[in-house]
Amino acid sequence: MEQKDISQAVIRRMPRYYRFLGELLDEGVERISSNDLSNRMQVTASQIRQDLNNFGGFGQQGYGYNVQFLYDEIGKILGLNEKHNIIVIGAGNLGQALANYVKFEKLGFVITALFDVNPELKGKKIRGIEIHMLDELDEYCKDNPVDIAALTMPKAEADLTAQRLVGLGIKAFWNFAHVDLNISDQDVVVENVHLSESLMQLSYNIVKNKNS
Amino acid sequence: MEQKDISQAVIRRMPRYYRFLGELLDEGVERISSNDLSNRMQVTASQIRQDLNNFGGFGQQGYGYNVQFLYDEIGKILGLNEKHNIIVIGAGNLGQALANYVKFEKLGFVITALFDVNPELKGKKIRGIEIHMLDELDEYCKDNPVDIAALTMPKAEADLTAQRLVGLGIKAFWNFAHVDLNISDQDVVVENVHLSESLMQLSYNIVKNKNS
Repeated sequence: MEQKDISQAVIRRMPRYYRFLGELLDEGVERISSNDLSNRMQVTASQIRQDLNNFGGFGQQGYGYNVQFLYDEIGKILGLNEKHNIIVIGAGNLGQALANYVKFEKLGFVITALFDVNPELKGKKIRGIEIHMLDELDEYCKDNPVDIAALTMPKAEADLTAQRLVGLGIKAFWNFAHVDLNISDQDVVVENVHLSESLMQLSYNIVKNKNS
Repeated sequence: MEQKDISQAVIRRMPRYYRFLGELLDEGVERISSNDLSNRMQVTASQIRQDLNNFGGFGQQGYGYNVQFLYDEIGKILGLNEKHNIIVIGAGNLGQALANYVKFEKLGFVITALFDVNPELKGKKIRGIEIHMLDELDEYCKDNPVDIAALTMPKAEADLTAQRLVGLGIKAFWNFAHVDLNISDQDVVVENVHLSESLMQLSYNIVKNKNS
């Protein structure tokens, strides 16, 4: 399918469509009108039509949306029809928590290795996934396909490690370190998960609610 | 300070200002021009001025911004001058990872208790923070101040637990469960961290880059 330049705001809403459609499939729903989908997702039917029109529509007048078809198409748009191998740099609590999530695998995101500098973790396995030492990173990346690097190490080391990984051909970062990665390569994509920033967002809204 | 109705987009950028200003303070920088801040943050100087003007400005012509003052003011805007007690519902890997983060405490977010249904975890402590059983939740919330509930349990239980917590007077949720919380109370604020959605966002951009 040809993809126009679609705004990141639209893209950010796609995983939520995917989630709701998955729930509908689980419930055995085969088709749904944009109004029913609208009620369920608490967004306007016109927003839904607009969003999906970015990808060519999918709806049929008087029929609504075929749930399985729409689910599969959005899955393809999101790249979920491909397997993505992830390595996790930093095998502390967060790194281990990520490795323990089975749900990512169902979406095609497979964590294949963890890396750390702590020699006590060497060779340990999390749900069968081995923790390697960071000095084995170059060799590992040469011998194994790696699509995404998840960075869960302290911010002081994150940027340098990211540069090193870019040098090893890694094109995508899932960055939990609380720092902006300085990557000039236009082919590299970064998705930040800044937990403390989301807490700040929350406390802003708490304070605002108290004052209103 | 009087706060106008400021768009969430502006608010979403504030934690990043706060982080950069904190780094400047660590480096001993006392004042900075909006141009220098702009270069450092990779956003336009005009965006910076516009963003900060929402809160009354802070800059002085020909002087720039006083880093400490701006840092403190943004901290206040974000509610970081108050302590926020957090309970974590779900003491699995992610819940324990959150409890182990010392950095949240430096920002005033203090995790005071974890809750789980697994009897094997009862009484266990993570960095000194006790894991309680979920049936002790009501009593705990009556006896202790709780500002935020972090939900790290499976999605099937998240919504019901959130309703229960709203009944106990909790006004803010940090939701890691992959589900929309159905909370009709307008005073309740929710901040979602949907890890699998951020992975989908990443894979969308990977696929898009490959095709471009």
